[in-house]
Amino acid sequence: MPNNKLITPRKLSGFMELPPHKQIVFDNMIDTIKKVYKNNCFVPLDTPVLEYSEILLAKSSGEIDKELYHFTKGDSDVCMRYDLTVPLARFVAMNADTMTFPFKRYQVGKVFRGERPQKGRFREFIQCDCDIIGLDNLPLTADAECVNLIYETFEALKLDTLTQISNRNVLFGMIVELGHANHSTEILTILDKLGKIGKDNAFNSLQALGLNKDDADKLINLSMLKGDFNDILKQIKGLSNNPTFLKGVAELEELSKYLEAYKIPKDKYILHLGIIRGQNYYTGTIFETIIPTHPEFGTVCGGGRYDNLAGYFTDKKLPGVGMSIGFTRLFDLLDTNNMLGQFPLSPTQLEIIPLGETLLPCLELSTYFRSNKVRCEVNYDDRSFKAKLKDAGRKNIPFVLIVGENEVASKTYTLKNMFDGTQAILTKELCLEKIKEFIQK
Amino acid sequence: MPNNKLITPRKLSGFMELPPHKQIVFDNMIDTIKKVYKNNCFVPLDTPVLEYSEILLAKSSGEIDKELYHFTKGDSDVCMRYDLTVPLARFVAMNADTMTFPFKRYQVGKVFRGERPQKGRFREFIQCDCDIIGLDNLPLTADAECVNLIYETFEALKLDTLTQISNRNVLFGMIVELGHANHSTEILTILDKLGKIGKDNAFNSLQALGLNKDDADKLINLSMLKGDFNDILKQIKGLSNNPTFLKGVAELEELSKYLEAYKIPKDKYILHLGIIRGQNYYTGTIFETIIPTHPEFGTVCGGGRYDNLAGYFTDKKLPGVGMSIGFTRLFDLLDTNNMLGQFPLSPTQLEIIPLGETLLPCLELSTYFRSNKVRCEVNYDDRSFKAKLKDAGRKNIPFVLIVGENEVASKTYTLKNMFDGTQAILTKELCLEKIKEFIQK
Repeated sequence: MPNNKLITPRKLSGFMELPPHKQIVFDNMIDTIKKVYKNNCFVPLDTPVLEYSEILLAKSSGEIDKELYHFTKGDSDVCMRYDLTVPLARFVAMNADTMTFPFKRYQVGKVFRGERPQKGRFREFIQCDCDIIGLDNLPLTADAECVNLIYETFEALKLDTLTQISNRNVLFGMIVELGHANHSTEILTILDKLGKIGKDNAFNSLQALGLNKDDADKLINLSMLKGDFNDILKQIKGLSNNPTFLKGVAELEELSKYLEAYKIPKDKYILHLGIIRGQNYYTGTIFETIIPTHPEFGTVCGGGRYDNLAGYFTDKKLPGVGMSIGFTRLFDLLDTNNMLGQFPLSPTQLEIIPLGETLLPCLELSTYFRSNKVRCEVNYDDRSFKAKLKDAGRKNIPFVLIVGENEVASKTYTLKNMFDGTQAILTKELCLEKIKEFIQK
Repeated sequence: MPNNKLITPRKLSGFMELPPHKQIVFDNMIDTIKKVYKNNCFVPLDTPVLEYSEILLAKSSGEIDKELYHFTKGDSDVCMRYDLTVPLARFVAMNADTMTFPFKRYQVGKVFRGERPQKGRFREFIQCDCDIIGLDNLPLTADAECVNLIYETFEALKLDTLTQISNRNVLFGMIVELGHANHSTEILTILDKLGKIGKDNAFNSLQALGLNKDDADKLINLSMLKGDFNDILKQIKGLSNNPTFLKGVAELEELSKYLEAYKIPKDKYILHLGIIRGQNYYTGTIFETIIPTHPEFGTVCGGGRYDNLAGYFTDKKLPGVGMSIGFTRLFDLLDTNNMLGQFPLSPTQLEIIPLGETLLPCLELSTYFRSNKVRCEVNYDDRSFKAKLKDAGRKNIPFVLIVGENEVASKTYTLKNMFDGTQAILTKELCLEKIKEFIQK
């Protein structure tokens, strides 16, 4: 094909595509997350990437619509999923009659949001979600189970996190008590930004809404409370007799007991009444996880309790609690900040290099090592022996087996440790032993 | 929300969605496949689901266009990927300068084809691909590596398969030798259907194209040859002196040596000159894997050698060889035919049931078991003890730990084996031992 017909290879912007050595780390982390989810007895679900638009837009506030990959195919009006919660709601609504509750499912999958790309934002990203869905009711133990799951997950990822927990009813109850129920959404929006805009700006915004100085102060001070559960709960007790406020406090007290029972270390979670979470479908417990050494990362995991998962699809009452890790963004942050840890060795554990006419015995040897669970390949390309050896070093391959004609005749082979440079002439069984010793370390 | 506003929950047809107990089996099989790919030192790649349409349509023959999920978003003309090969070509063309060749990559991901749904066909399905890409040249050893990879993969899946191998140049060379080069595509299309339409229909179709009886017979007989490599190669030697034919035969001879060296059992692969594979981008070795006890499943894995992966995108010559498992379809066939094997136990290995006021110590116990790698949860819902025990049995959970107030006081708990019904009162350490014993079996 002549040059002038070439199509320039390019990728859509805002879509992550990693080189394989980073994809290996990415995949390992995903596997780690799934392992913790499974260990906590969540079961997997894999819903389609495409759904009828009417399903995905059922609970839409109009906010998300602009971001959607929305189109028609034949006579179907379809969207690519933008989260994993609406598909879960659709699934549970369709299958509730044959399911056992509480239903604990995890889903790790790509979601799509066609927003304007910006640093650290992706149009295609992997969410790692866990939800616990009850029928008619769901004990508060489930909320604790979610918080504990977050703790176990980040421990497994070797990331030092802090989960900030609140209960929507506390702030909301106080707003009602102060007589501002009609402005609650605007007030919560302002308080949600408190950390970003600062106390003074928040104060002015609240006053602009019509709140007097005292009320604005009260709400800001409440939002700024954070610390040990027992300490904070003591401080807010008696602040209000509003039933919603009292409900929130009582739920936090109960939750606190469960969190202690789970033995989550005390430095891994706090009560922070300023946690609000944007989505207004949360109705009780809410939580946001941060990495304290990197507050600029923002929320790396969030979630909470909702009264009814699938009210748009079914009359059944399905209360739930869930958490979600926006993994692609988290990975990108860790990568950008050199926090991925040491890159692992090459996926190849043993590379066999033929010297002379030994390709066939090399293939046979590779089968032997693979069947003994060593990641092994033969380097059969036509470059020089020296070039191959150099490449193996550059690729971080730990062992090379050099197989010349004499080696084939004697059935002993030169095993070279690429890290310390030592080598020994050994039978294949002894080679295997040496390699296994190294792998298991 | 009032009833009359409910949206009927429904899923697009042609999209697989499994209940969790089957999704577990699905995921386990995918994990098994990935493990074999990794063991063979392939590295992972994850390209975006969406690509610029001009990229995905670069090599399109018009055939695939109707099936594409093709739309615009903002000012981008985009498509959902319909295979994993074109994205690989785009990736290699973009990154060739910084890559090491041969490049061995695997990709397991969803692809999308909006064809009319029919039994056993899915509009969203998972492909499990491996390709080996060379720069300028790629030894035939790579073809053998692919065939061996197929063997190892299906062995790991415990599926008894047969891989049928041919080389495009053999039949094509014979067609040229007989003077029908100008009709080669039509002839190959007819021969490709030989198994389905039968010898007589194929014969008539070839004659309709203008072939005489002798030529039609020769081609049909050649296409029907199948069996042990050495046997068939002996039979066809000397049938033609056409250089393309001779090249095909020589390559098959060389390939045969490598396959023997890999120690692939002889009953797992044959030479079958009637294997053609539709896509005309294959240029040498081609293979199709079937499950001999279920020929009606058709090809469960296929692939072959291509001269140039990315000719549309780059001047670099990138010969390659690859294989692909259409996993969603395979899983569906196995499921429909009760061939998934025994469903595994519940993902939960130990369910802790509180009796009386013991929820908190139960949560603590669950942390103990989980940190010791037992998949453990507390059943904290508000049903009766009896109902919970019955549920655990129905869910196939192997162990239940019953924790009453006396148990908490004595720090010994009733561990019930749900399969044999035996139970014993043990410390948590001894419980762990018993459970581990069982899990490791």
